[in-house]
Amino acid sequence: MILRMSSLFVRTLRDDPADAEVPSHRLLVRAGYIRRAAPGIYTWLPLGLRVLRKIEDIVREEMDAIGGQELLFPALLPREPYEASGRWTEYGDGIFRLKDRKEADYLLGPTHEEMFTLVVKDLYSSYKDLPLVIYQIQTKYRDEARPRAGLLRGREFRMKDSYSFDVDDAGLEESYQRHRDAYRRIFDKLGFEYVIVQAEAGAMGGSKSEEFLAKAAVGEDTYVRCTRCDYAANVEAVETPAPAPTPYDDLPAAHAEQTPDTPTIDTLVDHLNEAYPRADRPWAASDTLKNVVFTVRHPDGTTEAIAIGLPGDRDVDAKRLESKLGEGVVFEPMSEAEFAARPSLAKGYIGPGALGEKKEAGIRYLLDPRVVSGTAWVTGADVSGSHVLDLVAGRDFDGDGTIDVGDVRDGDPCPVCGDTDGGVLESARGIEMGHIFQLGRKYADALDLQVLDENGKLVTVTMGSYGIGPSRAVAAIAEGTLDELGLCWPRHVAPADVHLVATGKDEEIFAAADRIARELADQGVEVLYDDRPKVSPGVKFKDAELIGVPTIMVVGRNLAEGTVEVRDRASGEREDVAVDGVVDHVVRLVKA
Amino acid sequence: MILRMSSLFVRTLRDDPADAEVPSHRLLVRAGYIRRAAPGIYTWLPLGLRVLRKIEDIVREEMDAIGGQELLFPALLPREPYEASGRWTEYGDGIFRLKDRKEADYLLGPTHEEMFTLVVKDLYSSYKDLPLVIYQIQTKYRDEARPRAGLLRGREFRMKDSYSFDVDDAGLEESYQRHRDAYRRIFDKLGFEYVIVQAEAGAMGGSKSEEFLAKAAVGEDTYVRCTRCDYAANVEAVETPAPAPTPYDDLPAAHAEQTPDTPTIDTLVDHLNEAYPRADRPWAASDTLKNVVFTVRHPDGTTEAIAIGLPGDRDVDAKRLESKLGEGVVFEPMSEAEFAARPSLAKGYIGPGALGEKKEAGIRYLLDPRVVSGTAWVTGADVSGSHVLDLVAGRDFDGDGTIDVGDVRDGDPCPVCGDTDGGVLESARGIEMGHIFQLGRKYADALDLQVLDENGKLVTVTMGSYGIGPSRAVAAIAEGTLDELGLCWPRHVAPADVHLVATGKDEEIFAAADRIARELADQGVEVLYDDRPKVSPGVKFKDAELIGVPTIMVVGRNLAEGTVEVRDRASGEREDVAVDGVVDHVVRLVKA
Repeated sequence: MILRMSSLFVRTLRDDPADAEVPSHRLLVRAGYIRRAAPGIYTWLPLGLRVLRKIEDIVREEMDAIGGQELLFPALLPREPYEASGRWTEYGDGIFRLKDRKEADYLLGPTHEEMFTLVVKDLYSSYKDLPLVIYQIQTKYRDEARPRAGLLRGREFRMKDSYSFDVDDAGLEESYQRHRDAYRRIFDKLGFEYVIVQAEAGAMGGSKSEEFLAKAAVGEDTYVRCTRCDYAANVEAVETPAPAPTPYDDLPAAHAEQTPDTPTIDTLVDHLNEAYPRADRPWAASDTLKNVVFTVRHPDGTTEAIAIGLPGDRDVDAKRLESKLGEGVVFEPMSEAEFAARPSLAKGYIGPGALGEKKEAGIRYLLDPRVVSGTAWVTGADVSGSHVLDLVAGRDFDGDGTIDVGDVRDGDPCPVCGDTDGGVLESARGIEMGHIFQLGRKYADALDLQVLDENGKLVTVTMGSYGIGPSRAVAAIAEGTLDELGLCWPRHVAPADVHLVATGKDEEIFAAADRIARELADQGVEVLYDDRPKVSPGVKFKDAELIGVPTIMVVGRNLAEGTVEVRDRASGEREDVAVDGVVDHVVRLVKA
Repeated sequence: MILRMSSLFVRTLRDDPADAEVPSHRLLVRAGYIRRAAPGIYTWLPLGLRVLRKIEDIVREEMDAIGGQELLFPALLPREPYEASGRWTEYGDGIFRLKDRKEADYLLGPTHEEMFTLVVKDLYSSYKDLPLVIYQIQTKYRDEARPRAGLLRGREFRMKDSYSFDVDDAGLEESYQRHRDAYRRIFDKLGFEYVIVQAEAGAMGGSKSEEFLAKAAVGEDTYVRCTRCDYAANVEAVETPAPAPTPYDDLPAAHAEQTPDTPTIDTLVDHLNEAYPRADRPWAASDTLKNVVFTVRHPDGTTEAIAIGLPGDRDVDAKRLESKLGEGVVFEPMSEAEFAARPSLAKGYIGPGALGEKKEAGIRYLLDPRVVSGTAWVTGADVSGSHVLDLVAGRDFDGDGTIDVGDVRDGDPCPVCGDTDGGVLESARGIEMGHIFQLGRKYADALDLQVLDENGKLVTVTMGSYGIGPSRAVAAIAEGTLDELGLCWPRHVAPADVHLVATGKDEEIFAAADRIARELADQGVEVLYDDRPKVSPGVKFKDAELIGVPTIMVVGRNLAEGTVEVRDRASGEREDVAVDGVVDHVVRLVKA
């Protein structure tokens, strides 16, 4: 196949587009791969579409290899199934909703759990039909609050979503592992650096969940990895190791003390070290128990007040809290009015004495995992200007539950090897490229997907859900491989195998280049051929570097000496190859 | 490739789905190709998706062969370009509109003229860049008032739309012809009977337009064809031959007569034959001039009154009128209130005396092409119970223009050879599968698409628009080829090449079938292999007939005699082929 630059529907731009925030977006627009149609909505020009298709084909091949069967759901979906699962409401502003001419409610599918569940319910009824893996590669929609970074967070985007259906947990685990292996093969083939991190299943109700992240400084996802072992996790999913409970029989009794003008942790710690100095070590923020109160609004419209008690050196991480509360739940710090309505709360001095569902303020009190039985804390005495010292968890107070939403920091102990090998966490950024997780029975329960088991008894099917975003992958791969000259595609996803540049004005040069292009094409090499007659070599080289096809061939002055230059776009290495052997040489490079 | 029935995500149904109106729809659901997700919105199961993909690949191949370049626009589109072209309003209820979270207006693209025009404006600026053909194969949306017949008229459907861009009319004509040839190759390859009919360009503002119709009794499009020549046209596009004007010097003067109780054409003709008998021939409906009044509402909200004067033996054809008035224009018979507001109109006795834009009633008066200068008519005298006889067009009255919206009937003269060879029209029904037309400069004007010509002068680009609906094609091909046993796919679009059925319980049979399936697959044959161990031969045969793969192989009892049965699904012919040579035999059949 030969794409001729003289007629290819592409125009490279010298200037960066005004709205481009990240390098991949700038270059994909400048090199003529995509154009913006609306915020977060893009048109794929021929070069961009070629890359997208190659990624989709790689994904399809691996899905087929694990027995996945492709089907295709509509994007325009009726409300009912999403109502049944609760997501019509849960999604809040995050989905596009519309009405048809008969005022019936529809949405543009953000993800198709409901539809997959229903089609299996429609077709299958016996354990003999399972396991089953079905998938689609399809256009999806989310009304993102802040579409950004071009294709990285779009509002119309391409997704491969697959689902596994099994009769039991062991089957689900097997389907999950098969997908995990397929995803590793896909990402290996796409050709860029990635990491698999543990993720929070969150509101999806599942048990096990992992993300495939492209390592990228511009990534929106922060994850942490252990400096010792291979533990890596999305910040939302990091599990804080809980210390073992300790006996409290010998601990001193709690005692309230005057701590005037200490509404913050810093002022409190200073005051403690001044007024109540400790012999063994000075007071630190981690000795205090901070209680933060929020108003939480659930998707069904109900609200509740919660308090989170965590060590004073930690803040509540909003993303971790969001993920723990579940999709569609929103929260905000408790308002002045809500405070005023609860006279038992002393602002800046709130303590366990006033917190708990059964107490006057009616606030659900959730504790950080570090607050285990036997730990002693300095915390608010529920009176302005006063704190309690030596207040011991399990002896003097309890929470209504635990919640692990304190911020995660570089140097925190690794949940896997922190205890044994002293591994600590460090943070990094990435782009979510794939997500696999064990949904379990959430959708099968909501939509009543059951099959008969071996004993003729109805059992609820258990499901896994597995996604890859090919359009986001285009940007993520670009981001991970580009250099100061332009795009720099890995071999399997490049829009062509070879960028053949003919320079100068000699007819002989163009005749030779024409012949080389044809011979390469005959051997199945995809050639992007810059045959433009009146464009300077400088412009052609700049375009070739910008467009980023992995191998660049230059047919020009060297032809007089019987050679053609072959450049590696990524390394910049060049070699002169005899014109007679250059086609074979390049075929070998391409098929390597 | 081997698809095993034991694990393929398909279930055949013995009963017809309740909502299926046409045979193709019934069978596509029963054979497990599609499932309904909402009215006019379908899910493609694996077998259906395979057929759809094959059709899309055939279309893509031919588009590429004429130099078309594929790109991909979003389906979710901003309002602005459609506002600029006027179609945001023109489409009326026919499109899906929605708002994003910022209350910005969007639509789901029903067709992409505006987007194609804008992308060319964005990238190109010189005549040297043209001609250009770009296309996409994409999901489109229309909020049909009456989605019907499964995939034949859906609300979410697949379309290949291509556009040509040229500097002048000669270039457009060439691009048009190239597309026409490509379409013929596509439809020939798809393998069913079709006809190319002249179509009305209508509101699209173009000049030349043809449709590719699948011949089908269930088709929604009525077209006519000449019994003599190869003329064929959509009913909307039939041009009524206008007789030559004749001199009227010798014609008698017009005279009003009493015609009490003759508000209809029938009562009038009876009365004329009784009260004013003619010597040479009796009065007929075609001697009378009927004037029908409508209220017309334009997309911009303005209304006007029009009257259509046509021979009394013709009715106004609503579809032809709709097409002449243009997209988004609605019309209805004039209401009682509107009549009452125009005292010069005598209901049942309206004549040219009261009609015309400049007359008191202010009604635009449009005449049938048959009403040429020198023709004499009996028509209303604008007084209840009275008609005028010998009223001569061009002498006694004129219209404000002509309109060709009288109904078209079997036996009407052919517009091409009716005069010379006496060809007459006959009607038939079809399914619109493709549409090609010369858009001209409508969108280039509206969106200001100009390029510099050879002399450095800005010229407006002229465009052609070319569509094929692959999802509709699935249904149309099914409809055109099915028989009483089930679906019956043409070779190039079938979901598999061979349906291999293993019958009985012998391990030897299944071992032989396994080996045949593998050998076929190794030679590139797509095998749908019914390897289900506990399903009776009768059920397997019925499924094979229903699913409609063109070649059916049966490995069963015959194996003992060393043969395998090979059936042709369409003709029902069967032959026993020696098991040793059967793979080669079938490979030859498939590749033929």
